[in-house]
Amino acid sequence: MNTPQVAIPAGFQVHVSNIGVKDTTDDFVVIAAGQPVAADGVFTRSRFAGPSVTLSRSHLIDHRARGIVIISKNANVATGPEGIANAAEISRLVAARLGCAASDVVLASTGVIGRQYPMERIIAGCAEVPADLGAPGTGGTDALAAAIGIMTTDTVPKVSQAVIGTGPARVVGIAKGVGMIEPDMATLITVLTTDAELPADELSTIFRRVMDRSFNCVSVDSDTSTSDTAVILASGAAGPVDPSEFEAALAEVAIDLTKQVARDGEGAETLIEVQVTGARDHDQAKRVAKSIVNSPLVKTAVHGADPNWGRVAMAVGKCATDTDIDQDRVIICFGDTEVYPRQLGESDLAALSRYMAGDEVVIAVNLQIGSGVSTVWGCDLTDGYIRINADYTT
Amino acid sequence: MNTPQVAIPAGFQVHVSNIGVKDTTDDFVVIAAGQPVAADGVFTRSRFAGPSVTLSRSHLIDHRARGIVIISKNANVATGPEGIANAAEISRLVAARLGCAASDVVLASTGVIGRQYPMERIIAGCAEVPADLGAPGTGGTDALAAAIGIMTTDTVPKVSQAVIGTGPARVVGIAKGVGMIEPDMATLITVLTTDAELPADELSTIFRRVMDRSFNCVSVDSDTSTSDTAVILASGAAGPVDPSEFEAALAEVAIDLTKQVARDGEGAETLIEVQVTGARDHDQAKRVAKSIVNSPLVKTAVHGADPNWGRVAMAVGKCATDTDIDQDRVIICFGDTEVYPRQLGESDLAALSRYMAGDEVVIAVNLQIGSGVSTVWGCDLTDGYIRINADYTT
Repeated sequence: MNTPQVAIPAGFQVHVSNIGVKDTTDDFVVIAAGQPVAADGVFTRSRFAGPSVTLSRSHLIDHRARGIVIISKNANVATGPEGIANAAEISRLVAARLGCAASDVVLASTGVIGRQYPMERIIAGCAEVPADLGAPGTGGTDALAAAIGIMTTDTVPKVSQAVIGTGPARVVGIAKGVGMIEPDMATLITVLTTDAELPADELSTIFRRVMDRSFNCVSVDSDTSTSDTAVILASGAAGPVDPSEFEAALAEVAIDLTKQVARDGEGAETLIEVQVTGARDHDQAKRVAKSIVNSPLVKTAVHGADPNWGRVAMAVGKCATDTDIDQDRVIICFGDTEVYPRQLGESDLAALSRYMAGDEVVIAVNLQIGSGVSTVWGCDLTDGYIRINADYTT
Repeated sequence: MNTPQVAIPAGFQVHVSNIGVKDTTDDFVVIAAGQPVAADGVFTRSRFAGPSVTLSRSHLIDHRARGIVIISKNANVATGPEGIANAAEISRLVAARLGCAASDVVLASTGVIGRQYPMERIIAGCAEVPADLGAPGTGGTDALAAAIGIMTTDTVPKVSQAVIGTGPARVVGIAKGVGMIEPDMATLITVLTTDAELPADELSTIFRRVMDRSFNCVSVDSDTSTSDTAVILASGAAGPVDPSEFEAALAEVAIDLTKQVARDGEGAETLIEVQVTGARDHDQAKRVAKSIVNSPLVKTAVHGADPNWGRVAMAVGKCATDTDIDQDRVIICFGDTEVYPRQLGESDLAALSRYMAGDEVVIAVNLQIGSGVSTVWGCDLTDGYIRINADYTT
């Protein structure tokens, strides 16, 4: 797995601790710059979005933030007025340690829904945030430690980095999330940091464009979280960069994290990449690709290396409102092998089964309607997913 | 399980045999009247609908049919021009035995996708259909035998009957289907028969209304089949009936079969009924109910009797385009127990877990927006589902 030691970009400091939200693993992470910096965030569109999401959305309206607090093992969702008050209090307490306005602190939470925060322990944890965190030497610089601190049922921490152009500016991202993953605006939680200097509006435009073709293209189980949060913070410490080089680096990190999330889906053993081409437009391509990658029957067939490609035809077909999809034009491939309309013999099916037994399965569908394309990522559905989720809170 | 000996209504005869489509279990069923009778059908809206669906849809345009042929263990889907020609040939061969036009024969198929029919065996099977089947004494009268003959991975045959008013006219239905169940117009295959006499247009209106609140309200795995077919045949042998009494009997049979399908979902151990009330309209109620009953995280929580009710909040929340859903108004109950917004204590959670360990779990959500209601049925997601579907064709 991809778990290198990665330093956070210049201009940021990291604080990671265990405050006992659920157990003794790290569960409290603060990433902060030395002063408010250019920032943006995209969030779940869930109608049950939690207080962390609503608070952060309002705090990022000005596209500036000093830092982000991430609490894992408790989502603080469906917790009523008490949950809203608690989120506001945490932002105030951390802001007081950092020496900034509460509105410059972003908050993200992940974990069980419908339980109040253990506020006594969280208040104690906030008090231990280093004063003026973000100023040089006030905290740590280990992005991997932060990635570990935000894990819930993730089996591996997810961190990725890329150099912008020839450097020295970099993009470093961390992410968590293995279930309840069908992001509608972002994945469960990801924090992207860069020491590049960009105007806030340009940062925002590039960030949202990259999110749309990375985290918004992953699905583990079709269940959209109440807590999806993706935040970017740009310290500017490494000076100005070429925007297109920045976008390339940001996309590299975001897509790498997206694939790490898919590969670590709850119980997952196989990464599934679905490429749809020849669609009427991008939206149709993505709708068909999501239909395939979310199909429990496709996912279980991949798990069993069962060469039952007809289930991909089924998943294309169930996009019933796309009446321009014509089964006489559709081409379906697994890897480089066309499975439809070509009729497969027994030896072809055996070869297909061997291909499906690999670590990654690529399913490519050409609708032959237009030029719309989309690539999405997901994972197989295994008895491990059942085991993990049949006994989560108890 | 509900597997009584049930006689087909007056005016119909049944032919059931094994013709060796896949193995030695019954796989070829013909249900026919003695002459063309009032009939209708609703079908999958899949863009990969098979030749059985397209042929039957055209044969039922005149709302008349002599009978239906059901072939199990091979869906004849994604089989190209050869598959289309085979479907037409089967309808001609059976029509020749019955002594009717090919356009009075309806065809339904279920099983693996992407394989050609074993036509030599099917042609031999068609030759053994009794001449003039449907006339008194030409075949059998056992609806249970027909229900057994259309099974694929079903663990139990599904048959149901109801008397219309005080009789003697009855409704008798058979159904099959355990996976790839998210009917868009009907379930995988169900045949409803009655000896009631009704005008074809009235039969059609009532049939479609009942389908919408029965088979169109079940989901096992959110995967819409390419072969969904629901057909009704009314022999008229028992004379005219009161239409509202007929609708009540038809609904009783259809909902009973729907629940049998949900309860026998692949790997299922628990029937889940989701009742949404207080929606803006019926469509919204059904959308929210389907979101809950299809959520893998809700389904696994029910499987594990895990009182993680927050996942129901998540599933309501992910109906993100329903911006009138307000989490401060939503009420969520399991059985008679309110779980949200009420905060549950530890003893409440233990009681909830005991309730969830039962054979049936009712989840009721009141959106408090309007008066739209919908009830849908589904089942838990178990390792049995994974085992069945990871190794289906091989």
